[in-house]
Amino acid sequence: MSKIIYADNAATTAMDDEVLEIYRDLITNYYGNSSQPYSFVRQNKIKLKEAREIIAKCINADPDEIFFTSGGTESNNWAIKCAGEQNKKKIITSEIEHHSILNSCEFMQSNGYQIELLSVNKNGIISKDDLINKLDENTKLVSVMMANNEVGTLEPIKELCEIAHRKNVIFHSDAVQALGHIKIDVKELGIDLLSASAHKFNGPKGIGFLYIKKDTKIYPFHDGGKQEKGLRAGTEDVASIFSMAIALKNNCDNVQQNTKKLLLLENIITSYLNKESIDYIKNGDIHHIPGNISLSFKNVSGEMLLHRLDLKGIMVSTGSACDGMDDQVSHVIKALNVPTEYITGTIRISLSKKNTEEEAKIIAKAIVEILKK
Amino acid sequence: MSKIIYADNAATTAMDDEVLEIYRDLITNYYGNSSQPYSFVRQNKIKLKEAREIIAKCINADPDEIFFTSGGTESNNWAIKCAGEQNKKKIITSEIEHHSILNSCEFMQSNGYQIELLSVNKNGIISKDDLINKLDENTKLVSVMMANNEVGTLEPIKELCEIAHRKNVIFHSDAVQALGHIKIDVKELGIDLLSASAHKFNGPKGIGFLYIKKDTKIYPFHDGGKQEKGLRAGTEDVASIFSMAIALKNNCDNVQQNTKKLLLLENIITSYLNKESIDYIKNGDIHHIPGNISLSFKNVSGEMLLHRLDLKGIMVSTGSACDGMDDQVSHVIKALNVPTEYITGTIRISLSKKNTEEEAKIIAKAIVEILKK
Repeated sequence: MSKIIYADNAATTAMDDEVLEIYRDLITNYYGNSSQPYSFVRQNKIKLKEAREIIAKCINADPDEIFFTSGGTESNNWAIKCAGEQNKKKIITSEIEHHSILNSCEFMQSNGYQIELLSVNKNGIISKDDLINKLDENTKLVSVMMANNEVGTLEPIKELCEIAHRKNVIFHSDAVQALGHIKIDVKELGIDLLSASAHKFNGPKGIGFLYIKKDTKIYPFHDGGKQEKGLRAGTEDVASIFSMAIALKNNCDNVQQNTKKLLLLENIITSYLNKESIDYIKNGDIHHIPGNISLSFKNVSGEMLLHRLDLKGIMVSTGSACDGMDDQVSHVIKALNVPTEYITGTIRISLSKKNTEEEAKIIAKAIVEILKK
Repeated sequence: MSKIIYADNAATTAMDDEVLEIYRDLITNYYGNSSQPYSFVRQNKIKLKEAREIIAKCINADPDEIFFTSGGTESNNWAIKCAGEQNKKKIITSEIEHHSILNSCEFMQSNGYQIELLSVNKNGIISKDDLINKLDENTKLVSVMMANNEVGTLEPIKELCEIAHRKNVIFHSDAVQALGHIKIDVKELGIDLLSASAHKFNGPKGIGFLYIKKDTKIYPFHDGGKQEKGLRAGTEDVASIFSMAIALKNNCDNVQQNTKKLLLLENIITSYLNKESIDYIKNGDIHHIPGNISLSFKNVSGEMLLHRLDLKGIMVSTGSACDGMDDQVSHVIKALNVPTEYITGTIRISLSKKNTEEEAKIIAKAIVEILKK
């Protein structure tokens, strides 16, 4: 395989080498079923406990508030479908959420729930006033993403959570794009539920967690065995769980340093585009996930741009991976009211700690080359 | 870590070395998000397609009938909660199912469904007459495990399925304990849904699948992105998926040879116990999962036996791992009507292709030593 420039880290990330070695050690030497009562799994139980402690520390939670799942989609399904008071029938979310939230809400709607979508401004920031207006006594849950996956915008989670709590409504945040990339303190934010996915922060695929603040009303989504205090059944994938914890710690410990580097890389790209007088809009807000930039080029096809970059060995995205091959404009870009002549020319470049300045320069030059041809 | 004898393969298995190498290669070189439309994930898509083909061939399904999940618990939850005609309100299962079935049924019951539990005979074989009596026009689904996890009994799936189909009811089988250990042909059995978990056949943890026969009525359990033809959302864990496929193929290709070996190992243990005039009952049926033997010893504590064996470096189980530390007699052993003086003295020894004749001898001698002390 020839060397490529991978700039689609919002879709997924490469696993850290150290993390893969941990996975390999654990699955080889500690393959036992952690729920069994014999000495062979003593180490597994220690690793599970340590993983919970490491993760909890990263987000300022208590270890017994961390519940392992198969990833972001499961965590989001669990929160939307199972949290809150069962007699309340309204769920409030935003129009720019990931499909694992929106489609879970649609499922709830088909089961008699009322779904309200909060609007966003042109930077993708969710309206607090809209939340104030939509909250009522019948509201079961408010779910707002911490950072948008397509444009990187960071949402005012603390303020939105305070508004929800004033009406005694549980607040969930899908932090799949944010965790490991910005500092998150669940106690400071005040949130009740937070979804995370390991493969978005250099951990393994197929593993994630749901933070559940103590005493939050929620019932199990995966019914079965007594794992995770009876709240999430299924044999514990200790190797993936502990690998996730170390991957998260690696990123959280270096979040300032990574941020600095990623803002520099972003700047290399946009400065070069500006220098070359490329006509584009940078979507999203100034407060965004470092390294995640959504650009809309005038009178260009984003798909064409993606493919031409691919031919040059550069991997970027037109939108969410979960939308697959759909060539239509995404619900997020539509919600931002990007002007018509720019809207179809949108690509997302999402850089990670593994990208270099040299790569950022190559990406910028490649875009200019394609657009000026 | 000192060398142990691992004889709890019904709880989980060690990953094949070859399978771990495959995982390592894929997660390192093909970490991209498979749903993206660029060349970097071309190989991922090929691996996903190949995995589906390999798995399908192992059970005589069509590749597009295989849907990847996070494991047996998810597959069982999906089948019980989402399959069948929505206007029908009865689900029939058996009293000896795994808790991921029984607790999913309990959830459905709390949502207005009627749950009927089929009885078993003393060998753990589910009653066909009971199914005939309980089936009616209101039945949405019949779910019967292919092999019991505690005593290994193989159920008459083909006949039970035929009975259900005569009433046009969808038939699901939890094959978590069976797949990779006996030959399974979904077309010959006629079943509509089958659950599987990779870590029960020397694959990775956190991955499994649900076989869904073409045109079977089922809606998504994990809502979100468009993966798995829109039926199961979540970023594809290609490394685990392809590893699972190879692990399954390894076991299916050698099922006859493994069976022969495991029946020999079983015989080494029981012959020695007989020779030493140990008073015990062998639970389950003559038609059982090779290597899975449940023994109830007279006037003995199973937990004591487990711990004394553990001290000798031998790992066995008292029951299902998913029951955790519960020291009560399991619902399966209760259903088999094991006589009172034997019931609390139950242990499960579950051997795998990796166990040796020498290990079987050591296990048998250790049991005798403990019981005669």
